[in-house]
Amino acid sequence: MSHQRYLNLNIGINSTGYLASAWPARKVGNRLDFVDPDYYVRLSEIARRGVFDAVFFSDHPALMTERTGRPFHSLDPLIILTAIAAQVPDIGLVLTASSTYNSPYNFARRTQTLDIVSNGRLIINIVSSFNPAVAANFGNAPLPPRAERYAKATEFIDVLKELWNSWDLAREGVIGPDQLWDNQSAHAIDHNGQFFSIKGPLNVPRSRQGQPVIAQAGASEGGLDLAARHGEIIYCNILSKQAGFAFGSKVRDRAIAIGRDPREILIVPGVVPIVAESYEAALRRHELVSGTGSEDGLLTRFIKENGIDPAGFDPDAILDPERFLPDQNRILAVGMGMGLYDLLSHEKLTARQAVRRTEGFHRLVLGTPQQVAEALIDYWQDGAVDGYTVQPPLVPEDLTTFVDEVIPVLQDRGVYPRGYDGRTIRERYGLGLPQPLAPQLALAATA
Amino acid sequence: MSHQRYLNLNIGINSTGYLASAWPARKVGNRLDFVDPDYYVRLSEIARRGVFDAVFFSDHPALMTERTGRPFHSLDPLIILTAIAAQVPDIGLVLTASSTYNSPYNFARRTQTLDIVSNGRLIINIVSSFNPAVAANFGNAPLPPRAERYAKATEFIDVLKELWNSWDLAREGVIGPDQLWDNQSAHAIDHNGQFFSIKGPLNVPRSRQGQPVIAQAGASEGGLDLAARHGEIIYCNILSKQAGFAFGSKVRDRAIAIGRDPREILIVPGVVPIVAESYEAALRRHELVSGTGSEDGLLTRFIKENGIDPAGFDPDAILDPERFLPDQNRILAVGMGMGLYDLLSHEKLTARQAVRRTEGFHRLVLGTPQQVAEALIDYWQDGAVDGYTVQPPLVPEDLTTFVDEVIPVLQDRGVYPRGYDGRTIRERYGLGLPQPLAPQLALAATA
Repeated sequence: MSHQRYLNLNIGINSTGYLASAWPARKVGNRLDFVDPDYYVRLSEIARRGVFDAVFFSDHPALMTERTGRPFHSLDPLIILTAIAAQVPDIGLVLTASSTYNSPYNFARRTQTLDIVSNGRLIINIVSSFNPAVAANFGNAPLPPRAERYAKATEFIDVLKELWNSWDLAREGVIGPDQLWDNQSAHAIDHNGQFFSIKGPLNVPRSRQGQPVIAQAGASEGGLDLAARHGEIIYCNILSKQAGFAFGSKVRDRAIAIGRDPREILIVPGVVPIVAESYEAALRRHELVSGTGSEDGLLTRFIKENGIDPAGFDPDAILDPERFLPDQNRILAVGMGMGLYDLLSHEKLTARQAVRRTEGFHRLVLGTPQQVAEALIDYWQDGAVDGYTVQPPLVPEDLTTFVDEVIPVLQDRGVYPRGYDGRTIRERYGLGLPQPLAPQLALAATA
Repeated sequence: MSHQRYLNLNIGINSTGYLASAWPARKVGNRLDFVDPDYYVRLSEIARRGVFDAVFFSDHPALMTERTGRPFHSLDPLIILTAIAAQVPDIGLVLTASSTYNSPYNFARRTQTLDIVSNGRLIINIVSSFNPAVAANFGNAPLPPRAERYAKATEFIDVLKELWNSWDLAREGVIGPDQLWDNQSAHAIDHNGQFFSIKGPLNVPRSRQGQPVIAQAGASEGGLDLAARHGEIIYCNILSKQAGFAFGSKVRDRAIAIGRDPREILIVPGVVPIVAESYEAALRRHELVSGTGSEDGLLTRFIKENGIDPAGFDPDAILDPERFLPDQNRILAVGMGMGLYDLLSHEKLTARQAVRRTEGFHRLVLGTPQQVAEALIDYWQDGAVDGYTVQPPLVPEDLTTFVDEVIPVLQDRGVYPRGYDGRTIRERYGLGLPQPLAPQLALAATA
């Protein structure tokens, strides 16, 4: 891996933006554009104007049906990202998909094909689904315990890598006059594991970047082990610089322990930018897009979300971090709850300060374009993070603002590129080309 | 359904073309273009120039690894068709996928999204996988008996239709100021069947054409029942006009018996065109692309494929059809074997005649552009078929020849359109918009 010269930025563009309560503030776009594929193509074009490394689609294969909410996940991301790949050049594509509800062969084939269609721009964010509303759409089998889900996710990615490497046209030898291709360039994988039994080879050859980049989220013990084994881009909640150092060390130490090069792991946490012409105006926009309406509203929400007794609550007293430690066994994602605990462990903060440091579980960076750019550069320059997954509260407007006002500051500071240069997404992230696997077995004729 | 004014034509464009032995005769294209997505986009553009209704991708999720063969199925058709939809207007898209190895929720979501991306151009060809080489890539569970595979395929399509209709934005009522959408436009399906248990609703709304068109192949008893229940476009082997009438009646009678309008079923068999400047030249090209090299070669292959004793074989004796009846219980697709039996049942033919009537299990139409066009019009004008799935032996050349030489004859005869007119693929096939299902259940809040 070569030196990471630039700040890496992905951009989340689901539905109306990251914050569920922001949509009433929306002034641009059509009410139902969240089910219009062209809307996501347009957002990707705006993101490309901002030289983002990749558009990021989180996912959840179930309809969120709250009356006043917005369906955060609708059109299938595999299809939408393929449509974007075919129409928008350069920009990378982060696909979120479940290791619980996809068969490895079909998934390896579809993703390798998309990696070829996009000419090496695919990043895969594997999640081990945990939501009962999702399970109800997939046969309603009892939810396996977290440890088993992570074991399955680990083997799922093991198999993906075996399949992605099972046919490599670079291995072709001399092609006889009676041959269209060298069938020795493909080999069976004969995988027989705890969860999957797959013969292979995959019927799609290796892509230009060797294989899609693996993104990974999840800060539970199982999630950290999976990140250490397979993760290349780690999507996480980092609310303070110290938390960034601590988290990065934790993941990289585990990677070293199993023999991986720790430089192959990049920490790219979520960040929620709120940009306005003044700091005060950004505070007001924060109150608007959070749906709380005021600083008191932010504090009221903080009390409620954290189960604090409002009687005697002092918003200007230093908070005790232990009060905010999530239960490792709870059904919801552990990682999303760790951020606040980590923040309060590393910095002494009051509730009034804390509500301005985080929004939607991620770090909130709030202020003028210059202030937001400085806040982003700060953690990155010190090595606490390798980049960010920017989560604009409201799209298109907060995306457009970021592209038009924050990106030029980053470019002027020399920490961010002014254009694309034809590299794969793997190269843009400074990640090495995976070594082609040696054929494990001579080809067994299967046709 | 309105009157079917025009001949409908789909076009198969897998790899180097339909016939496995044709590739050595190829003069256009690059050796490895069968793994290049742009190649399929270019083929689709040629097909669009020919005003084809749809490009058809057959599929098989396993690598065919014969040394001198060509991998007929490589890049994933769901992804390739999405890339085509994003880049080539107008033309429809036939996706082949297995009901055995896809989960209904993901598959319904991905296909409905592609139907939206393509603005109502998707046709789905559901197959119940039967090949051991495929099973080995999906956990190697013992192959279920054919009856169970068809029962599962039937329920799979039942569920697809329930999911595709579970969220319809046309059902939106008054949208309150606190609402982005009307969550009452979606309803749970609460499907609990023999094979699938799925709550719903799907998180993708109904598409412009209501739902993708259902294509169906398979002439076994289970296949015919599935076609009668769900099929709209029936892909089959029809080698004689009489066989077309007989097959159409058989499927439509079953449809009537279960209360369907038989006009909702269109017979669109495969056909292999071999076009040259003279009939004699077409015979020679047949011998070339079939890989047999001569008429004697064709006869030798016929003897071998049908297990005939060469001793005393008379290529000019009338064949006994009973000798060619496939076993209903054999593991390979019954439908592919029925064509020759049907042909010989309806016409008295010698082996020398029979080898010129069929190639790759489908009807062979061979001759000058005028002769090929007449042969296609003949069966269609008499109502034996509603259209064809054209399977050019070698692409791009046989596709280009068909588009440049046969299509203009069909257009001049007034049986084929000269351009597209913005209709959905469902409308082009004269199929009615499916009725929106009444919401079966009030919305259960799942978010």
